[in-house]
Amino acid sequence: MPKITVPLKTPPEVIAAFEASYHVLAKELLDELANTYKMPKEGVERMRAMLDHNVCGGMLRDALAIRKMNRGLAVVDTMLILAQAQGRTLTQEELFRAHVAGWAIEWLQASFLVADDIMDQSHTRRGKPCWFRVEDVGLSAVNDALILEAHLFKFIKTHFRAQPYYADLVDLLHEVAYLTELGQLIDMLTAPEEKVDLTRFSLDRHSYIVIHKTAYYSFYLSVAMALLMAGITDDRAFQQAKAILLPMGEYFQVQDDYLDAFADPAVLGKIGTDIEDNKCSWLINSALAKCSPAQRAVLEANYGRKDAKCIAAVKQVYRDLELERAFHEYEAASYQRIHALIDGTDLSLGVPKEVYVSFMNKVYKRSK
Amino acid sequence: MPKITVPLKTPPEVIAAFEASYHVLAKELLDELANTYKMPKEGVERMRAMLDHNVCGGMLRDALAIRKMNRGLAVVDTMLILAQAQGRTLTQEELFRAHVAGWAIEWLQASFLVADDIMDQSHTRRGKPCWFRVEDVGLSAVNDALILEAHLFKFIKTHFRAQPYYADLVDLLHEVAYLTELGQLIDMLTAPEEKVDLTRFSLDRHSYIVIHKTAYYSFYLSVAMALLMAGITDDRAFQQAKAILLPMGEYFQVQDDYLDAFADPAVLGKIGTDIEDNKCSWLINSALAKCSPAQRAVLEANYGRKDAKCIAAVKQVYRDLELERAFHEYEAASYQRIHALIDGTDLSLGVPKEVYVSFMNKVYKRSK
Repeated sequence: MPKITVPLKTPPEVIAAFEASYHVLAKELLDELANTYKMPKEGVERMRAMLDHNVCGGMLRDALAIRKMNRGLAVVDTMLILAQAQGRTLTQEELFRAHVAGWAIEWLQASFLVADDIMDQSHTRRGKPCWFRVEDVGLSAVNDALILEAHLFKFIKTHFRAQPYYADLVDLLHEVAYLTELGQLIDMLTAPEEKVDLTRFSLDRHSYIVIHKTAYYSFYLSVAMALLMAGITDDRAFQQAKAILLPMGEYFQVQDDYLDAFADPAVLGKIGTDIEDNKCSWLINSALAKCSPAQRAVLEANYGRKDAKCIAAVKQVYRDLELERAFHEYEAASYQRIHALIDGTDLSLGVPKEVYVSFMNKVYKRSK
Repeated sequence: MPKITVPLKTPPEVIAAFEASYHVLAKELLDELANTYKMPKEGVERMRAMLDHNVCGGMLRDALAIRKMNRGLAVVDTMLILAQAQGRTLTQEELFRAHVAGWAIEWLQASFLVADDIMDQSHTRRGKPCWFRVEDVGLSAVNDALILEAHLFKFIKTHFRAQPYYADLVDLLHEVAYLTELGQLIDMLTAPEEKVDLTRFSLDRHSYIVIHKTAYYSFYLSVAMALLMAGITDDRAFQQAKAILLPMGEYFQVQDDYLDAFADPAVLGKIGTDIEDNKCSWLINSALAKCSPAQRAVLEANYGRKDAKCIAAVKQVYRDLELERAFHEYEAASYQRIHALIDGTDLSLGVPKEVYVSFMNKVYKRSK
């Protein structure tokens, strides 16, 4: 097998090319509205503003930050590694299709975030007001969430319809979107913001939620799309990708939960609100799994309340239970486990270890 | 060509079989959640309740009423006519697939209605509270709208993946969903409930909205799906279906707008609220097109206000402008026009006139 180089970070020129493809796709969609769909001008302008706010602005600003896994770029990174493994470079067409596939994930995420912010009644997202809070948008943002999802199938069709794996690609996107929505459903049933009921919580439930709601679309999807584009059809390759990337995605979310309470807000760039928002976080579930009856009573009395004293009381229990140490133990164990999984990959399936190492490099031991 | 019989109404046994297929599809989806997706039981139960409320309950109760066009049954009706034209009867498998395709439209409509009711902040739908008004649902209904859409692609995949036209079917569903969402977007930009601005209205704008928001999914989609299932691939057949069914769908919505203000509420089964809700209705647009400056001032001052006196003032202008007569003239002209279009169909494309006559029978001159 040829020597494969895995950059620790995606190189800036790769990111710049990926960004340029956003503008190609956005222009295609907007031109089509004006020309094919004869949409009134104000509709096209509204669509442009919606894309700027939710796809472009949100994604590109911090494309280099490790905080954003940058799901879209992961498709490109994976394709570059798969091509190296095949001893070749990507054609311009293949590279552009990798960009399009990457943007499909970013559009999908934008759709979910617009919807989630409405459901959570959130106020800000990436330093800007949530889309539904923007003047003259309001609940019409529900329709925008549907439109963002429609867009990605639109440009996937434009650029992949002639590929032999087109139906598989569309099926994959549908499947992962559905899995994400199922995770969101269970999350909302488990931890509705208004009804605190810690008996619904458990580490198993937490695991179900984060694998479905986050790991599939943020980790598995980018590799699975790249496998399809690389002509890999053996289902075992996809199962292997799942076996590695779903636990990695779970770890990623656990880390996110940990940072929400324990990171320095100055480094994190925001103040965590999981405790007051009654979030089904890894921390509360870990606390519930090991607390005394007295500590449980404190958690029951204080979790999910928007009150500084309540938040402090919960955090004190977290400290008393040494959850910071528990997280670092979990992190080390998770790292070992995934490292072993990567070591044990079946290389005959055509996917080099570097695909997964590239993810590992970006995910473990981040501080924000 | 064989003799084709077109029943004036869909026969009860056809409806009963269609209903039975709903239960097959709902069971498949729910069993898959429990078995394949290992969803916690309360999630499966919530999904069951969501389907009961939004797909099953809403659709079947009045399947025989002409008020409901019954988009799903139109697929079955069309397939039965196409098979007759081919001098054969449908196999059990083909009939079941026609049911599945029909239910895909019903699921798609359910997704739109759940979303629309949130956006409009509606209270009731078909005599029941809107889904998001149901206790413990609230804004999590946004996710349910996404799930309902995911469901239909799920069962379309289950039952059509092996068909040669699978990708075309999925593309068609995506395209029509997108068109509907574009119609919804323009409707909300034109007639936001809080900001009355009649300068945004026009008959052209009304036509754009209703063709996109209603006619594609309620009229064109069922026939286009049936054409794909019947193995018709000539694009001219699809264009011909559009040319007939989009104006028919437009007429259907104009009639709906007319009945909202002029039908007897006892017959209509509800009290129209288009005037107070600032709806971009055919009536207000027709009024604006022919009113005097003084009448326009009355409309400007009273449209979109939740006040019985305002509503009465608008209705008085409608009466003074003889909009009832204008509607009946429009109806007659539309009937003639579509009749001529049907008469002029190119039978060599494999679609007999009876497909369209069957729609005509159900749509024109309804009173509720």
